[in-house]
Amino acid sequence: MKELLTGKQIAEEILENSAERIRLGHQKYSTTPCVAIVYVGDDEASRIYAYQKRKACARVGIRAVEYGLEYTASTEDVIELIYKLDADIGTHGIMVQTPLPKHIDADRVFDSILYSKDIDGVTQWNVYKLYKYGHTELGPCTAEAVVALLDHYNIPISGARVVVVGRSDTVGKPLTLMLTQRDATVTIVHTKTKKTKEITKQADILILATGDLEKFDDTYIKEGATVIDVGIGKGSSNKTVGDFNQADYTSNKKARISKVPGGVGAVTTAISVEHIVYAWEKISERKHTEK
Amino acid sequence: MKELLTGKQIAEEILENSAERIRLGHQKYSTTPCVAIVYVGDDEASRIYAYQKRKACARVGIRAVEYGLEYTASTEDVIELIYKLDADIGTHGIMVQTPLPKHIDADRVFDSILYSKDIDGVTQWNVYKLYKYGHTELGPCTAEAVVALLDHYNIPISGARVVVVGRSDTVGKPLTLMLTQRDATVTIVHTKTKKTKEITKQADILILATGDLEKFDDTYIKEGATVIDVGIGKGSSNKTVGDFNQADYTSNKKARISKVPGGVGAVTTAISVEHIVYAWEKISERKHTEK
Repeated sequence: MKELLTGKQIAEEILENSAERIRLGHQKYSTTPCVAIVYVGDDEASRIYAYQKRKACARVGIRAVEYGLEYTASTEDVIELIYKLDADIGTHGIMVQTPLPKHIDADRVFDSILYSKDIDGVTQWNVYKLYKYGHTELGPCTAEAVVALLDHYNIPISGARVVVVGRSDTVGKPLTLMLTQRDATVTIVHTKTKKTKEITKQADILILATGDLEKFDDTYIKEGATVIDVGIGKGSSNKTVGDFNQADYTSNKKARISKVPGGVGAVTTAISVEHIVYAWEKISERKHTEK
Repeated sequence: MKELLTGKQIAEEILENSAERIRLGHQKYSTTPCVAIVYVGDDEASRIYAYQKRKACARVGIRAVEYGLEYTASTEDVIELIYKLDADIGTHGIMVQTPLPKHIDADRVFDSILYSKDIDGVTQWNVYKLYKYGHTELGPCTAEAVVALLDHYNIPISGARVVVVGRSDTVGKPLTLMLTQRDATVTIVHTKTKKTKEITKQADILILATGDLEKFDDTYIKEGATVIDVGIGKGSSNKTVGDFNQADYTSNKKARISKVPGGVGAVTTAISVEHIVYAWEKISERKHTEK
């Protein structure tokens, strides 16, 4: 049997704490946090994610303003918009929805965001800080959600063998840096890895972030492991599933696994909200002190 | 028996190629490459490294100018000097010797270097690029030297199990990103890792970068592995040694191991030189085109 780990309670706690900080901050600074969500073109998946973020923002009292540019917008057009948002004292956070169209220079777009408004941790400064210190106040939200889940369930990180499957900029790479800093011994597995099962079966903590839905099952894990399933999508039977095959939720092998949906995803959204509140507090505190 | 891998030939090739590029470039641009070596205080080890760099520079025709600041210099003093060097059209590369005194904000100092003159790959842009693409023209020289050694001896990287011992900014972290990009499956081991030998014995390629001199021996490696020894220092018998115990150079277990001295170190210096030539070519080409 699997013990199912849910993100609901953590997400609730983060959102309630954020709402409280907004109430207190509003009394002190007389401002309300506001985040800019920037699109280029019309990617459906990114619209769905943005909708969830807007909903969570609305719940805690964050204004979310969408800025949609045509698919044909140039890198300069996007940067021009972001510079305006950087300079706007009423905008406290900036989130650029990805994927960006291929003709856009994403590195330049990301780095045009003021690092203090960089909710998703995509600027050079935040990447550099993550690399050097294994932590940054505004880091990649999904990677932070994985760590928050592990901490919430008191899964020991220090000394653990961790295997991360997937080498993306938003999950695999940041988690390698973050968990190595926390004294875990991390292995990054990917599509070109040989004997994957031999490696994943050594993991005390196995993090699945491949997008290969339902690919992983009991044969990949050792008894007693903790599995964090970052994948999400529509599976074979049109159900929302992750990278782990849910048929093995009820198998004999004992393990803990994060639910899909209701696991990492919910926490990720809550962490975005927390980042917006953090950015707003910092900006407001600075202006407050300057008065 | 161990097959000993030496860095001499690779270093020679890089230095000769650099000297040739300088000859050709000098004809075309009528300039000579010049690197600034910046010290703060008087760290003996860093003076020795700087001496080796100056010697290699002199050999190929690079001017090396040392800028020494007092130990008591402030972060602002160092940055002021670097801004001058950034702006100086006769300076093509800047190397800040580490360790910097503790009162200096190294992150700010590193990032004051113009990214195109960043010979050691310490600016935010070069770290970001390494993170995103697993490669940058001006990356950490020691990590690049390890890859150069592996490539020179045709050790397959793609598909290999790599274990890096040590999680430093200049070796462990960049090699994890660089070798993962090259399709290796990388594990980072460090002082808090449990059952280290179990893990290192799985490695096709074992990279030692701990500075724990003579700590590793045959009991850490599998038959047929390739060991790259990045450590260097004075060992128990006042001989220059690495992290691997040289008594096992002549043992029965078959493996390849990079020599200390004469392995990674020589290549690292040569790669610094190559970076200076690259930076000089880029700057000179730009000015040449502008005319």
